[in-house]
Amino acid sequence: MIKVGIVGGTGYTGAELLRLLSTHPDVELCTITSRSQAGYAVSDLFPSLRGKLELCFSASEPNRQLSFCDLVFFATPNGVAMQSVPELLQANVRVIDLAADFRLRDANLWRQWYQQGHTCPELLQQAVYGLPEMNRQAIANARLVANPGCYPTAAQLGLLPLIRQGLVSGTIIIDAKSGVSGAGRSACVDTLFSEVSESFKAYSVNGHRHLPEIRQGIARMPLSSAKPFTGEVVFVPHLTPMVRGIHATLYCPVEDDNVDLQDLYQNTFADEPFVDVLPAGSHPETRFVRGGNQCRIAIHRPQDGNTVVILCIIDNLVKGAAGQAVQNMNIMFGLDEMRGLNDVTLMP
Amino acid sequence: MIKVGIVGGTGYTGAELLRLLSTHPDVELCTITSRSQAGYAVSDLFPSLRGKLELCFSASEPNRQLSFCDLVFFATPNGVAMQSVPELLQANVRVIDLAADFRLRDANLWRQWYQQGHTCPELLQQAVYGLPEMNRQAIANARLVANPGCYPTAAQLGLLPLIRQGLVSGTIIIDAKSGVSGAGRSACVDTLFSEVSESFKAYSVNGHRHLPEIRQGIARMPLSSAKPFTGEVVFVPHLTPMVRGIHATLYCPVEDDNVDLQDLYQNTFADEPFVDVLPAGSHPETRFVRGGNQCRIAIHRPQDGNTVVILCIIDNLVKGAAGQAVQNMNIMFGLDEMRGLNDVTLMP
Amino acid sequence: MIKVGIVGGTGYTGAELLRLLSTHPDVELCTITSRSQAGYAVSDLFPSLRGKLELCFSASEPNRQLSFCDLVFFATPNGVAMQSVPELLQANVRVIDLAADFRLRDANLWRQWYQQGHTCPELLQQAVYGLPEMNRQAIANARLVANPGCYPTAAQLGLLPLIRQGLVSGTIIIDAKSGVSGAGRSACVDTLFSEVSESFKAYSVNGHRHLPEIRQGIARMPLSSAKPFTGEVVFVPHLTPMVRGIHATLYCPVEDDNVDLQDLYQNTFADEPFVDVLPAGSHPETRFVRGGNQCRIAIHRPQDGNTVVILCIIDNLVKGAAGQAVQNMNIMFGLDEMRGLNDVTLMP
Amino acid sequence: MIKVGIVGGTGYTGAELLRLLSTHPDVELCTITSRSQAGYAVSDLFPSLRGKLELCFSASEPNRQLSFCDLVFFATPNGVAMQSVPELLQANVRVIDLAADFRLRDANLWRQWYQQGHTCPELLQQAVYGLPEMNRQAIANARLVANPGCYPTAAQLGLLPLIRQGLVSGTIIIDAKSGVSGAGRSACVDTLFSEVSESFKAYSVNGHRHLPEIRQGIARMPLSSAKPFTGEVVFVPHLTPMVRGIHATLYCPVEDDNVDLQDLYQNTFADEPFVDVLPAGSHPETRFVRGGNQCRIAIHRPQDGNTVVILCIIDNLVKGAAGQAVQNMNIMFGLDEMRGLNDVTLMP
Repeated sequence: MIKVGIVGGTGYTGAELLRLLSTHPDVELCTITSRSQAGYAVSDLFPSLRGKLELCFSASEPNRQLSFCDLVFFATPNGVAMQSVPELLQANVRVIDLAADFRLRDANLWRQWYQQGHTCPELLQQAVYGLPEMNRQAIANARLVANPGCYPTAAQLGLLPLIRQGLVSGTIIIDAKSGVSGAGRSACVDTLFSEVSESFKAYSVNGHRHLPEIRQGIARMPLSSAKPFTGEVVFVPHLTPMVRGIHATLYCPVEDDNVDLQDLYQNTFADEPFVDVLPAGSHPETRFVRGGNQCRIAIHRPQDGNTVVILCIIDNLVKGAAGQAVQNMNIMFGLDEMRGLNDVTLMP
Repeated sequence: MIKVGIVGGTGYTGAELLRLLSTHPDVELCTITSRSQAGYAVSDLFPSLRGKLELCFSASEPNRQLSFCDLVFFATPNGVAMQSVPELLQANVRVIDLAADFRLRDANLWRQWYQQGHTCPELLQQAVYGLPEMNRQAIANARLVANPGCYPTAAQLGLLPLIRQGLVSGTIIIDAKSGVSGAGRSACVDTLFSEVSESFKAYSVNGHRHLPEIRQGIARMPLSSAKPFTGEVVFVPHLTPMVRGIHATLYCPVEDDNVDLQDLYQNTFADEPFVDVLPAGSHPETRFVRGGNQCRIAIHRPQDGNTVVILCIIDNLVKGAAGQAVQNMNIMFGLDEMRGLNDVTLMP
Repeated sequence: MIKVGIVGGTGYTGAELLRLLSTHPDVELCTITSRSQAGYAVSDLFPSLRGKLELCFSASEPNRQLSFCDLVFFATPNGVAMQSVPELLQANVRVIDLAADFRLRDANLWRQWYQQGHTCPELLQQAVYGLPEMNRQAIANARLVANPGCYPTAAQLGLLPLIRQGLVSGTIIIDAKSGVSGAGRSACVDTLFSEVSESFKAYSVNGHRHLPEIRQGIARMPLSSAKPFTGEVVFVPHLTPMVRGIHATLYCPVEDDNVDLQDLYQNTFADEPFVDVLPAGSHPETRFVRGGNQCRIAIHRPQDGNTVVILCIIDNLVKGAAGQAVQNMNIMFGLDEMRGLNDVTLMP
Repeated sequence: MIKVGIVGGTGYTGAELLRLLSTHPDVELCTITSRSQAGYAVSDLFPSLRGKLELCFSASEPNRQLSFCDLVFFATPNGVAMQSVPELLQANVRVIDLAADFRLRDANLWRQWYQQGHTCPELLQQAVYGLPEMNRQAIANARLVANPGCYPTAAQLGLLPLIRQGLVSGTIIIDAKSGVSGAGRSACVDTLFSEVSESFKAYSVNGHRHLPEIRQGIARMPLSSAKPFTGEVVFVPHLTPMVRGIHATLYCPVEDDNVDLQDLYQNTFADEPFVDVLPAGSHPETRFVRGGNQCRIAIHRPQDGNTVVILCIIDNLVKGAAGQAVQNMNIMFGLDEMRGLNDVTLMP
């Protein structure tokens, strides 16, 4: 059994980790910390866990109890994990951070986008970016995994086959739509039901924090051909009146008319347990992956033109957060990658 | 492995059965029939099952293939199962009908409420009403189980402790609210998104088909005391703009001031794996059981008056349909009752 | 032109007042105060008003600017209006309070339910309860109108004909369902989209502040017959995943079998501009009044039993708040009661 | 008073026309036809119109009653209007078709995209495309107006200023998101609440019927400069779980760094009563125009790159259908263009 600790389990990402880990057959959930809920039963906050999990939140002096864990997940706001991670690593505890603290390899870029200095920049090179479809081997050996953002997960999985083949020349447009749970569980007028329901909007058009992460990911994709992508990336996120789900619509200029894209995608992901290339002509719906760790992708080339359109869906809280974290844990501890991630999506 | 067949797997109840059975460790899903979808892969209709279930719909000549099954579920419209069930029973196949064909024990009552004659009234006495919390022993020995309706499941579980103790005198009000999936998956203007979203309504106020089922259930509840309930039952169902969930608000006149209702409910359901009595003062939310087979109940006595208010929630497609059917199967085949029903509810 | 001021225009009730008053042909909107938004244009906060209203929020020193108004609406939290109203009345300004400060006539009852002492109890007898269908004449002459709560509006309109005729004996059950906008526009986890969407719950079962208001309203209904209602009133509010709308389902024990209830309701409300009795057998949907000031009512007597079921819908922000306030203003200033309230409901 | 007839008033577009025309001060609604509802009161089908409109549906022998009208709106499925329009025009009745029959000027293109031959191709050149912001003068003189599609309205208004200045070189991406009412009111599994709620998808990626309409519109935009747009247009529509609203996100490659886009848009639309250019940096939400005839636009140039992003919102049933039809009527009959279109959007 892997002894697991969670720091900050009161948000949606934490709740989803709890859901997945509470039924994971190889995990012993040892400790979960929360400053605000210390002393309360987890199932008081999340009654959906009644009868599934007997655990109380403990005050957040992490390094006492957490140092006995094999693995600690951080489901905290940006900037929190970096305060505690160095000490935990020294205590030989492995770490998966679901926030952004270790996603960017460049401390200056981090400071620029997250508006605070990084407290352990020396760890940025050592941290492994936890997208298994790109970095499986490195994850297996990692002490510290930076779990990718939700938008970057969808975008990178959708772009990977095209970029690797050097097929894209020009500007990539990433028009992404997310459910509201992506905005977190903090009290906030902007995500009240009566503000968000029956409405749709773009946000952060001039620059969202996931943009540098996506750019870095594209730049680091292994190339099968000699032609790296050098174009611009435009990323516009939108808020959709639903709880879960990301739908990324990717527009890529592709000049090559002869490549069989359907084939390329199917081959690229043939051995991936969580990436499903849909039949040609499909239109994935975010509900097809609600609660599941799958990423489902469809490839279109409208009117046989020069713009390839990739439709890519994930559940932002699963493959876009907690599920991918569990997948990373499975890889780090030599388990079957699908262990504990076998749920079938609710339909409807 | 239990060899299982499903008749009529294209509605929401069928889809939910498929979700639950596809991961049930003791079930081999052998055949699923559908007139309209014969020849198509199940996962074409329900892409959420891609990679989880390799099975095609077959044409509905049930008794050929189905007679090799140990158990057949009917997830068909009312009046269909009764055409095939007698033959299957003779072939020694056990049957769980998720429709209403065998729920009422009185063929005349059935004709009155379902507007068609019953084709095998002789089976009505033999069929066991599949509410485990009332009939567990009979279910274990049953050849034919009538799976309860969604509203009757919530109403009866909420009323059982009070009725058994003979505590209710007067009129019981059942004000029930259901998600839209309860109305099924047929093309229909009334359940279009644009008709139902952002609106709330009552329906069938003058008489819903679940009313005689509830009345029959109350009349057949085992009594711990000498005083059977003789009052009226008023049942008003409402349509709520959500997909899943039933919230039954039950109003019961109770004259006894001394009974500890919280205690009564906790004791009654102490050994029930799927009934959870919430702490005093709780307000259950239907999302607490979304996708799960639990029924969660809270007991209130507002202002210490004579009206006891029971709040009772289930997922209409799980405990109110497919989950309860799987629970019944587990009981019929001597399995752990929770087998295959361990999913933790999605939150949010 | 009536010179109008609004105190506290940043919540949903305030926004709705702004919508209605900005197109009212007899109103000049002179001043609107808000501590938090002072200096900002109203249409910055509510872009739906761009081009319709050129007005900025001013700091909340109300009695300076407000004393020049003919009428001031308070759309503030409970307990705010009572601080300023006495001075405004002395300055000969008329007041409509949309909060609860002047709804209860008994200062002790107010203290008990609102957990604070009343600062001007002497005004409680003078204030007129602004339900036009009960108090039209008194409203016409009022200096201070207490605009009713949303639930009490629906409940009282639905009960009025039965109570007036002395037809109800026993316990009245009010099972009411509200959209989320009724919970206001404050930042709060409980009303986040991801908490409320796809879920349904009861709340405040043991006692909601609208209960004493409903009881007082029933007690003060004029009687056509000699038999006042002496039974209990049970009121259970529920939260529904929609923005606007209240659906009250009222259960009333009625022993008289001969009364023509449809006729009674139609006669009672024959001259009411905003109460619409639907044809017998109807099931009103809250969307039928979304954005409108109507109350629509249907009367049922299920299975010809002793329990009469009244279905009563309003838009909680219109007839349940701002629309009724405008209706009261029209009455106070001798205008046609429907003035400025002629919008047709959006469908869908 | 303009004598108005409506053919086909039972869908959402027809319902919206009824809402707008029932309160239009210069319109006398004379006749409304529907095959399926003949003889029934309009307010039986749409109870939101009770008390606002006393009219029954008549059987659809249009040309008898309709020939006495000044103007007939067709709110029928594609291919219906073209059967009756020639006769009505000969009877000196003016026509606004809300379907697609007269939107494309090329009969072959029409046949290709709508899969049926056109029965009066000679009228295609005579019909005026009813986008007032492009064709106001021609509309004023028109006998037959082709009311634009919902997506093309949003797309063309968003693109007009850039195209007119010849600023776009390369491929235009139109990523558009629509509420479900755009799919109409026909019984259909795909738009059931339980299929659409809590999910998001793209559709018709390989070619939607609005694509040729958008291309034609761009090609016919008047040019201020010498450089017509010659690039590709990619259009991907998406279905959003809300009833009303279109959000078009337009991506345009613009090489000119010196043009002040905010200024350009504000100038272009300075005199337009229904186009509102939001302050720089804004993110319009579809609810800002729910029920209103406004189009609100925001202009972004993310990271000062070469891709300009235009965010453009309308209510698909108002500016995208019935509201624009009423606007066209106002222009055709010399009325104030805003007549009958002054409603303020519901918020929330």
